[in-house]
Amino acid sequence: SPHHSPSTSARSNPPTFSMALSVEKTASGREYKVKDLSQADFGRLELELAEVEMPGLMACRAEFGPSQPFKGARISGSLHMTIQTAVLIETLTALGAEVRWCSCNIFSTQDHAAAAIARDSAAVFAWKGETLEEYWWCTERCLDWGAGGGPDLIVDDGGDATLLIHEGVKAEEEFERSGKVPDPASTDNPEFKIVLTIIRDGLKTDARKYRKMKERLVGVSEETTTGVKRLYQMQESGTLLFPAINVNDSVTKSKFDNLYGCRHSLPDGLMRATDVMIAGKVAVVCGYGDVGKGCAAALKQAGARVIVTEIDPICALQALMEGIQILTLEDVVSDADIFVTTTGNKDIIMVDHMRKMKNNAIVCNIGHFDNEIDMNGLETYPGVKRITIKPQTDRWVFPETNTGIIVLAEGRLMNLGCATGHPSFVMSCSFTNQVIAQLELWKEKATGKYEKKVYVLPKHLDEKVAALHLGKLGARLTKLTKAQSEYISIPVEGPYKPAAYRY
Amino acid sequence: SPHHSPSTSARSNPPTFSMALSVEKTASGREYKVKDLSQADFGRLELELAEVEMPGLMACRAEFGPSQPFKGARISGSLHMTIQTAVLIETLTALGAEVRWCSCNIFSTQDHAAAAIARDSAAVFAWKGETLEEYWWCTERCLDWGAGGGPDLIVDDGGDATLLIHEGVKAEEEFERSGKVPDPASTDNPEFKIVLTIIRDGLKTDARKYRKMKERLVGVSEETTTGVKRLYQMQESGTLLFPAINVNDSVTKSKFDNLYGCRHSLPDGLMRATDVMIAGKVAVVCGYGDVGKGCAAALKQAGARVIVTEIDPICALQALMEGIQILTLEDVVSDADIFVTTTGNKDIIMVDHMRKMKNNAIVCNIGHFDNEIDMNGLETYPGVKRITIKPQTDRWVFPETNTGIIVLAEGRLMNLGCATGHPSFVMSCSFTNQVIAQLELWKEKATGKYEKKVYVLPKHLDEKVAALHLGKLGARLTKLTKAQSEYISIPVEGPYKPAAYRY
Amino acid sequence: SPHHSPSTSARSNPPTFSMALSVEKTASGREYKVKDLSQADFGRLELELAEVEMPGLMACRAEFGPSQPFKGARISGSLHMTIQTAVLIETLTALGAEVRWCSCNIFSTQDHAAAAIARDSAAVFAWKGETLEEYWWCTERCLDWGAGGGPDLIVDDGGDATLLIHEGVKAEEEFERSGKVPDPASTDNPEFKIVLTIIRDGLKTDARKYRKMKERLVGVSEETTTGVKRLYQMQESGTLLFPAINVNDSVTKSKFDNLYGCRHSLPDGLMRATDVMIAGKVAVVCGYGDVGKGCAAALKQAGARVIVTEIDPICALQALMEGIQILTLEDVVSDADIFVTTTGNKDIIMVDHMRKMKNNAIVCNIGHFDNEIDMNGLETYPGVKRITIKPQTDRWVFPETNTGIIVLAEGRLMNLGCATGHPSFVMSCSFTNQVIAQLELWKEKATGKYEKKVYVLPKHLDEKVAALHLGKLGARLTKLTKAQSEYISIPVEGPYKPAAYRY
Amino acid sequence: SPHHSPSTSARSNPPTFSMALSVEKTASGREYKVKDLSQADFGRLELELAEVEMPGLMACRAEFGPSQPFKGARISGSLHMTIQTAVLIETLTALGAEVRWCSCNIFSTQDHAAAAIARDSAAVFAWKGETLEEYWWCTERCLDWGAGGGPDLIVDDGGDATLLIHEGVKAEEEFERSGKVPDPASTDNPEFKIVLTIIRDGLKTDARKYRKMKERLVGVSEETTTGVKRLYQMQESGTLLFPAINVNDSVTKSKFDNLYGCRHSLPDGLMRATDVMIAGKVAVVCGYGDVGKGCAAALKQAGARVIVTEIDPICALQALMEGIQILTLEDVVSDADIFVTTTGNKDIIMVDHMRKMKNNAIVCNIGHFDNEIDMNGLETYPGVKRITIKPQTDRWVFPETNTGIIVLAEGRLMNLGCATGHPSFVMSCSFTNQVIAQLELWKEKATGKYEKKVYVLPKHLDEKVAALHLGKLGARLTKLTKAQSEYISIPVEGPYKPAAYRY
Repeated sequence: SPHHSPSTSARSNPPTFSMALSVEKTASGREYKVKDLSQADFGRLELELAEVEMPGLMACRAEFGPSQPFKGARISGSLHMTIQTAVLIETLTALGAEVRWCSCNIFSTQDHAAAAIARDSAAVFAWKGETLEEYWWCTERCLDWGAGGGPDLIVDDGGDATLLIHEGVKAEEEFERSGKVPDPASTDNPEFKIVLTIIRDGLKTDARKYRKMKERLVGVSEETTTGVKRLYQMQESGTLLFPAINVNDSVTKSKFDNLYGCRHSLPDGLMRATDVMIAGKVAVVCGYGDVGKGCAAALKQAGARVIVTEIDPICALQALMEGIQILTLEDVVSDADIFVTTTGNKDIIMVDHMRKMKNNAIVCNIGHFDNEIDMNGLETYPGVKRITIKPQTDRWVFPETNTGIIVLAEGRLMNLGCATGHPSFVMSCSFTNQVIAQLELWKEKATGKYEKKVYVLPKHLDEKVAALHLGKLGARLTKLTKAQSEYISIPVEGPYKPAAYRY
Repeated sequence: SPHHSPSTSARSNPPTFSMALSVEKTASGREYKVKDLSQADFGRLELELAEVEMPGLMACRAEFGPSQPFKGARISGSLHMTIQTAVLIETLTALGAEVRWCSCNIFSTQDHAAAAIARDSAAVFAWKGETLEEYWWCTERCLDWGAGGGPDLIVDDGGDATLLIHEGVKAEEEFERSGKVPDPASTDNPEFKIVLTIIRDGLKTDARKYRKMKERLVGVSEETTTGVKRLYQMQESGTLLFPAINVNDSVTKSKFDNLYGCRHSLPDGLMRATDVMIAGKVAVVCGYGDVGKGCAAALKQAGARVIVTEIDPICALQALMEGIQILTLEDVVSDADIFVTTTGNKDIIMVDHMRKMKNNAIVCNIGHFDNEIDMNGLETYPGVKRITIKPQTDRWVFPETNTGIIVLAEGRLMNLGCATGHPSFVMSCSFTNQVIAQLELWKEKATGKYEKKVYVLPKHLDEKVAALHLGKLGARLTKLTKAQSEYISIPVEGPYKPAAYRY
Repeated sequence: SPHHSPSTSARSNPPTFSMALSVEKTASGREYKVKDLSQADFGRLELELAEVEMPGLMACRAEFGPSQPFKGARISGSLHMTIQTAVLIETLTALGAEVRWCSCNIFSTQDHAAAAIARDSAAVFAWKGETLEEYWWCTERCLDWGAGGGPDLIVDDGGDATLLIHEGVKAEEEFERSGKVPDPASTDNPEFKIVLTIIRDGLKTDARKYRKMKERLVGVSEETTTGVKRLYQMQESGTLLFPAINVNDSVTKSKFDNLYGCRHSLPDGLMRATDVMIAGKVAVVCGYGDVGKGCAAALKQAGARVIVTEIDPICALQALMEGIQILTLEDVVSDADIFVTTTGNKDIIMVDHMRKMKNNAIVCNIGHFDNEIDMNGLETYPGVKRITIKPQTDRWVFPETNTGIIVLAEGRLMNLGCATGHPSFVMSCSFTNQVIAQLELWKEKATGKYEKKVYVLPKHLDEKVAALHLGKLGARLTKLTKAQSEYISIPVEGPYKPAAYRY
Repeated sequence: SPHHSPSTSARSNPPTFSMALSVEKTASGREYKVKDLSQADFGRLELELAEVEMPGLMACRAEFGPSQPFKGARISGSLHMTIQTAVLIETLTALGAEVRWCSCNIFSTQDHAAAAIARDSAAVFAWKGETLEEYWWCTERCLDWGAGGGPDLIVDDGGDATLLIHEGVKAEEEFERSGKVPDPASTDNPEFKIVLTIIRDGLKTDARKYRKMKERLVGVSEETTTGVKRLYQMQESGTLLFPAINVNDSVTKSKFDNLYGCRHSLPDGLMRATDVMIAGKVAVVCGYGDVGKGCAAALKQAGARVIVTEIDPICALQALMEGIQILTLEDVVSDADIFVTTTGNKDIIMVDHMRKMKNNAIVCNIGHFDNEIDMNGLETYPGVKRITIKPQTDRWVFPETNTGIIVLAEGRLMNLGCATGHPSFVMSCSFTNQVIAQLELWKEKATGKYEKKVYVLPKHLDEKVAALHLGKLGARLTKLTKAQSEYISIPVEGPYKPAAYRY
């Protein structure tokens, strides 16, 4: 599974393992597995605060709640189990859905959010600090709705839920064809070993498990760049098994969540993890896409001198226009104080870079997968010493120099690992797109409107998401007059821009 | 011609006129009409400075000059006759073209630039402060290559050259059909009166003049949003007469020229026209597209408190995320000190707004056409008094209050009317796209690759334009490794982004 | 004691109390009282990180450590017991001092820092979340060096240690004069009740206790604006009992710690306490001194629309020049989302303001004392309901509207209550001034150089503090040539500016 | 006169000269010498615009005009003869003064402003592009009120008027003592040769001319850092001949004019002189005082990458906290695109630096005197070629490399030489201080309040200046309550800060 390799890391995992986890049940019989259900009250309080900051989701409840459009729909979500996600989940349930949920990152769960949802609203399998085995166990639990099979709809973030089904179906077909069961030993990739183990074990109990899921599935809505990239690859290779809506490329997602969300959460993560003064420091941001732009802006505004590395000359020129220097990592590796990867690519900061860094240079990743930083190279570096300052903040000391670097969240999403991710308001934009995408898939489930392809939401829905968030900020929009509307050939009610408009 | 109405304004023109302008000739026999040929030396000096700032154009000369790809091509350009455009013209001639040029705005010519080009390189018909009759006379001169007919290629900005040919063809066909000649009296639009007069007079000497032009024409490359909008409207209505390349929507044009160009030139125009302190002022920017974003950024950075008006909720939400208030013009008309229109729409600031403004509020437009500000309403306001402080800076005093407002460049493009437009470096990005578009049209003239439609340049050429501008700024790009390239399924040499990527 | 009233708050305290706290001892016999000594290892790890970020303090250790200038000196400190302060303490001990310490704010202690210091270096009496009785007990413990009396030197922050001695001496003199003991019932001020109780109890055991302290005391160095104000008031009224060095007004303190420290720690506190998205919000900063400037800059850069309230027209004009609106609190109380007090004055945000705020408006204080926000008015508001979201984050719901506001750190210093205060680097500037001030007082203890007055450090020491922090940031200073030095009449080695220079 | 050497430059002047300039007279008999009196109407229009932007001066007219406090006072001013200064002059005359004026820089006069004042209000001797002989002739004319002697008051900027009197008195005393007349040949400094010539010629007609001036003089108010430095040097050496008020160090001058004025006028000058795109460029600012801070902020906001050179570690650390790199000029001389000197020192950019710069690097000075850039070294560099692009914009080409640099305003104040200096609003702050200082000197002329020393205005007047500028910007100040006032021991009406407060 080449497209899976990115998220692979067996670092903290033993070579063999067993799935000895047990599902718990609420008084009402709903399944869950969370860290501490007693945190539910605290989660509920923060959930209530978040609701005030998430006008898009609350507007969905007001508009669609009465008609219960998700009545009868089973939704499985694999997406950071945070307070904001909790408001999304309860929006889905308020619209009639039944929901099962897991996190899409081993460090991103907020345990009080998980507790509140598990107690009050949906089946949750998620806690902060899962092992990779636990992570995939949670994913599998999330997708498994019991004897009746799988979900009707998936909310995915990074594509792991989608991947498990695709890999499961592939294995089942192979098994049917050749009797061959998946062999975890067939791969060097330790995370993929786990996936194969789960599928193999699944095969033993039901050789059509994932195919049944696929057959039931109406579609998936995918949250993030990385997951979207996987979907387009599958679309191109003709292996995509169900329709997909690319939520990431809604303007109100990628140009808000990725940009302004990271502008908020990068310094938040840095501060919570290290308390380091950003002003005066030299900070290297690898990549100047939306995420990189947000990170660079935040660091610059906090008083750092920012240097960007880029492969794309257009993005590089954008950085230059903002006064940001474009260099290669090699040029600056010994001079910088803070390194942030945002590329969506792999092998960005290698152990050989890390060896050359200043003492206590901070190295972190805010891209979806954890392979931007060569954690494997670091962990296996001869004589390297790991000193855990606190969870998700480790100092790694090299034997030659006796100097160290500080790695956040073990190379995973530092804003979710070290802080609380993106704030509610911007997630409300993203998640309102999710709700709209799920509604659209569900409404059209029988019409054939959506084929096994990747779709983006139409412009007018994108604009609607934005409009739902203006009132909270006291904005007053101007209305086109009829004459103006005719003059520029744009309807008074929009959409206001051509599809290719870049914002 | 409804799509033409935007640029119409007969304000400073008498109802009747005659084309008594005479073409002059250089020693070598090349035609021209400029203000003062003796400014050619000064123009040449500034041209030489600009060349150092326009690495994209100079790279085109180096790469393509030797093979003379434009050998035999006639290029007519209607685009602000500035120093930067002069470097574009001499790039086209360096690649083998013969060139005729006019400006696309009555105030935008830099007379020393026109003089240098007229003397040294191409036929120029342009001066700062044309009347509208003069303007259209220049346009017609620019398109008329003598007996042999018209140009092979057009570089257009706003679409007036394209419009003249389309209207001419329409009139000739009508004349052939019905014997009817265009009647300037048939329209209330004073500028369109002039267009019809020119076409009528042309008909008298050659009833196939514009059709011959059309037949020869290989295509047009269009520079700006407004012209592009016209082209798409013609494409939709099936009336487009030749292929068009939309240069405006190259990323390296619209996300650079429109954004960073205006960020530079808006304060420049304000300062040269009024010397007003921007810090501390309340500035209203109407529209938050690329141009509006550049203007708002410039004003904010200069210490103004910026308020934006928008119809589009997405752009409005972007402004809010930058701490910019979104209100309607009515909300703030009495409180603000500076008003800038950037919408591409009409009727943005009406005389009724202007009456309510603070004494000496500054009102200006940086959109392509001059109908964003209700100049007609202002000029015909009973008892209004116009006091010209200096050219392109007028104070208009209302009789009721005896307070005045300051209008820049008579409501036309203030950055070109009051300052020198966009700086060379960013124009090098735009104009390198123009050169590439012209090369492409010319290369494919016989292949049928381009139909009578509107095209954008492919991503890899857009990236090439950016790449040509990095060295000047000392940037060092990172190279993808082969493994990374495979992992993200992007060629090592690009293009690096999907077509819909928003930057 | 009118100058004490600011810090008064009996809110969470019963009217009567007893000092039933017990001192603990390390194996080596050093006294302490901290929350959890087992956190010492964690504290040590963070201390080691902080050392790398505090080049000024480390330079002091390198320069002065060998000569042990504090040999024989007893230093008592009343200053937020954080990781950064721990590095200060260990710098003092590295220079030969014996140290006792307490925090100057009930919420500002970092328990792991306190633990590390208590275990390894000095006598500490501090924990996060002290009651006011505990707070003053700690202060008294910090000042009491046993039979031998008090400290030789005090490091004070806000002036509570200084106040206790002054009040103690006053009471002893009154007692000697009239036999009258301090009567806690004589004051309405609940915190001052506690102070009087402590002094009264002290009188019972030693009627010269505070006078002996005063006699021994060489001087105090004071950290912050508020404490400095108290000292100048005492200087003016002739009641100051020992020399004082005003560290706050070193440029490298007030223009760095107050400004850049708050620019860092205000958003940090907001994010940790509420996770609220700052972008798009309306934020009101009360006061535009150094602290207010830092707060406003941080909020603006994070994308908020900032409004400042000011009494001082000069500071107001500075804000306007940065595009920040100046209004009164009344003008904006119903529209804003975030309120921050930075004034050093009292009664800034009253309960009557809070009642009119938007639901979930955030109200916090970053000024030294907790009387900027009318917590008393809030707590005693009829029917008000307090919901503790988490420690230091409370939602207060008004009965009329059933809407609530969110108050951080109970109105106390939110950056220390909700986050970890200022980062190490900027504290290194402040604390290097402290070390230098303490060295200066101690060196001159017998020379009479310092009278019972308030002094600032000379410019060249201020510049030295800055210079010690440049290397860490990779800066390379320019050197004056001899000719330049003569031309501007400034020594090559500085000081480079006249005393009144404002930076 | 060692302290004079800074402003010396004989570059464009012949070694010998004669004062063959003739004074002209208005119909009313007032003397003047300006470039073109017919520009008076244009000047008047811009003056009227400026009045709206200068609320402080207009408030002075309203408050003090009726009582004519300057009745009988002769004021001589040596200060850039711009539109803003014209409003100052007419404020002085509106308060009853008679005024004579010259510019304090050979390039800084705006000829239309000079014309309007010469025609309507005061005796003016100033034009843009004076030779140094003309410059000193103008200064002498400005000080010479005819038979009755000199002025009662001086408004000085840089101290040249003050210097002429001091040098004159010195020469007269020497002549009285020894019969020795000043010998222009005694100095190598070409500008000082001119000064000595003027004084020598004066001696011939009246051997007590400058002493009579001195005796009449009530005092001087000095505008700028450089002039103030001279005054303090004279105060220290006991040679100051009359009282002086240091206007520069009013907060509302140095922290506004120097900072926000330059933030406005530096990019303005760069754009008008070169049209260069600032975004993406590397800009070096020499010096990070108030002027340097303003310049660096402007360049950074325009998208340049800014590097600062500093001698002062405190200012350097301030730059670092804003993300600005601190290097030496040598470190960056070959990499930067724009160089700005702001130091008030000499020999900052030497010809040896200039030789190493990139082709078309821009070199300019915004400090008061023209000796920051080694113009002499440049002009005398063997084989160097000067190409004047336009007035005040020269390209200097070095023979070895055939590459050139662009020098603005011949190394003099580029914002006044290439643009129009600081905008009206911020000059209103500065000049309101001037009016208040002049009023104060005049009011106390007979009281002995002011000795032959340098004074700053008291804080409450500084605050008043600020207050006069708030209304124009729509600000609403908060009022202290009586309780608050007592609590912080600050009067309700201010002053609000201690004298040493740094803002």
